[in-house]
Amino acid sequence: MKILVLGGDGFCGWPTSLQLSRSGHEVIIVDNLKRREIDVELGVSSLTPILPLDERLEAWEEITGARIPHYSFNIAKDYDPLLSLLEEFRPDSIVHFAEQKSAPYSMKSSKHKRFTLDNNLNATNNVLAAIVEAELNSHLVHLGTMGVYGYGFSGIKIPEGYLEIRVEDIEGKEVKQEILYPAYPGSIYHMTKTQDQLLFSFYNMNDDLKITDLHQGIVWGTQTEETRLDPRLINRFDYDGDFGTVFNRFLMQSAIDYPLTVHGSGGQTRAFINIQDTVKCIALAIENPPQTGERVLIMNQMTEIHRIIDLAELVSRLTGTPIQHLENLRNEADQNDLVAESKTLPKLGLNPITIEDGLLMEIRETAKKYKDRCNSEKILSVSAWRRT
Amino acid sequence: MKILVLGGDGFCGWPTSLQLSRSGHEVIIVDNLKRREIDVELGVSSLTPILPLDERLEAWEEITGARIPHYSFNIAKDYDPLLSLLEEFRPDSIVHFAEQKSAPYSMKSSKHKRFTLDNNLNATNNVLAAIVEAELNSHLVHLGTMGVYGYGFSGIKIPEGYLEIRVEDIEGKEVKQEILYPAYPGSIYHMTKTQDQLLFSFYNMNDDLKITDLHQGIVWGTQTEETRLDPRLINRFDYDGDFGTVFNRFLMQSAIDYPLTVHGSGGQTRAFINIQDTVKCIALAIENPPQTGERVLIMNQMTEIHRIIDLAELVSRLTGTPIQHLENLRNEADQNDLVAESKTLPKLGLNPITIEDGLLMEIRETAKKYKDRCNSEKILSVSAWRRT
Repeated sequence: MKILVLGGDGFCGWPTSLQLSRSGHEVIIVDNLKRREIDVELGVSSLTPILPLDERLEAWEEITGARIPHYSFNIAKDYDPLLSLLEEFRPDSIVHFAEQKSAPYSMKSSKHKRFTLDNNLNATNNVLAAIVEAELNSHLVHLGTMGVYGYGFSGIKIPEGYLEIRVEDIEGKEVKQEILYPAYPGSIYHMTKTQDQLLFSFYNMNDDLKITDLHQGIVWGTQTEETRLDPRLINRFDYDGDFGTVFNRFLMQSAIDYPLTVHGSGGQTRAFINIQDTVKCIALAIENPPQTGERVLIMNQMTEIHRIIDLAELVSRLTGTPIQHLENLRNEADQNDLVAESKTLPKLGLNPITIEDGLLMEIRETAKKYKDRCNSEKILSVSAWRRT
Repeated sequence: MKILVLGGDGFCGWPTSLQLSRSGHEVIIVDNLKRREIDVELGVSSLTPILPLDERLEAWEEITGARIPHYSFNIAKDYDPLLSLLEEFRPDSIVHFAEQKSAPYSMKSSKHKRFTLDNNLNATNNVLAAIVEAELNSHLVHLGTMGVYGYGFSGIKIPEGYLEIRVEDIEGKEVKQEILYPAYPGSIYHMTKTQDQLLFSFYNMNDDLKITDLHQGIVWGTQTEETRLDPRLINRFDYDGDFGTVFNRFLMQSAIDYPLTVHGSGGQTRAFINIQDTVKCIALAIENPPQTGERVLIMNQMTEIHRIIDLAELVSRLTGTPIQHLENLRNEADQNDLVAESKTLPKLGLNPITIEDGLLMEIRETAKKYKDRCNSEKILSVSAWRRT
């Protein structure tokens, strides 16, 4: 298959591109390197020493013989090169990672709110409009987030995208309907993903576009089979307060004997997935597109659900690192439940890596190996969610 | 009160600004004149001869003694002047009309889709982010559309924004919830208004912003008490296939003996409101803001519901103009019902002007008076909703 990966230099995009290339697909990456620019803005860098994209790609070609061309333009702003590329390459699938993906970053300031909305929505709309204009039948695979479901309901099992509801009709009779799960986004970032859902639904209904939206949990881990092939292929590892994900941050903190920082009580419940499973899920999504005329296919891309405090205690037990409770900066309850369905991907063949699998210590080894690259001043999350 | 009107030169914005000014409020208009630029792009102009904004405003000052300052910048792009204006003027209310409002225009081409999304969402987000950054407690009044409800459900009475649903909880018990009515937008334009709703909901919950969203029906009529005070104040009247609203188009067509063009069977049902009532509703919304901490206040701003064919037959009966059925270009059922609640605005004091009130012929007189300004080649709607 011909596969276009938008945002193919990022934490999920890079290992996905390599896996797809290794599986024999013809892969092209589009990435404007915005994520690396944000590192510069924040004064942080990946804990792991990642090479410039072109050097990574040269190493990949040297090791596997497979070439992955890279185009550098901003899909949110530069529509014409995007359209031309689609018209020339005519991809079977387009994997869309090209969005600003950090909730705290999206809440740092007015400028960050506005960048996130402008970037994410124009990126998604440009891809959809270009597929229509190029008259392609490409399957769009988008990385959504479990955060689109939010915490508006409690006591309800989160379905895969669509909720069955009952409402009263004009005659007072009860009728059943399936609707997109009502969105209660907790940040501007999450909001853009709920707005993306409306874009997908519209283009799917109006233009019969084939779309899969993967609502992903919090990713942990760093390396995949492909990125481990050579040090030059190493994946990024973020530990800073904006882009570091909670579990990786705990492992990093334990590696440098920094207390495990938990915001609030830690009773917040979240869904998780290992990076290697992320890569597998995307391959599975590509291999199993919805049919033309079918509604948007939504899958929950997560394999475990945990309370933050339980993960902190697990890492603390294994490593002896103490836990430190900090103020909860987010505008959400300090305790919440999360019960969510995730049947489709296992049915398609996902055999998940669990946190119990001992991978934990392996990731801690990576963190330890590069701990001299850590700037411990960048660990704390400082985005204020609300005006004071 | 100090009131900022965003998009105060448009069809609804202009008469609203005058009415608010005449009521003694201190009004400032922001408008980048994009709507007039679109006239140039489409090669059309208002049937009524509208003056340049600065001349209109001079006439208003001459007649009433009230000055309405005008700032010309693009709120979707020029955030800094918007923020400065908010910080200096510190408005009690902000009325937000500054969005591209035509469904057919939003579907003309990829470029028009992208402009509509980029413009409307950045405009709304910039206003919200600026209210937060300026630390204001301003009440935002937004013009939404009845089209946000779409036609996903049938047989259900459309509520004012929030739908009561019943769902099954984890233990199999039925629980009740109120949710934003599930959105089924029929065009990119309508979609942006459903995405606006998510923005409002988020900023309301995160930052306690006071927001009223007015889901307006299709506006008919032209003049209001204030625009009638002097010919230099005349409101715009659009009859073209993109911006002309259906009822005004029928009256225009009858004035020039052009058949009344009905797309499909005309069984599509729509909500309507007269422009004078639009202006009254906005004044009522301004006078009755939600309290800080209350959820977004959603009101259906419409006074009558009709099938398109019934309106065409009414105009045909009154004027002898024949009806011509054309292909339905939109992606919707040829027949649909619409039953919608609209209780709040009447409770606040709206006493609606009905289509039966004879105003019809008055509007036809306006159309007749300026019929020599009509370019009949621009009457037909040609936007293709779908790729072929």
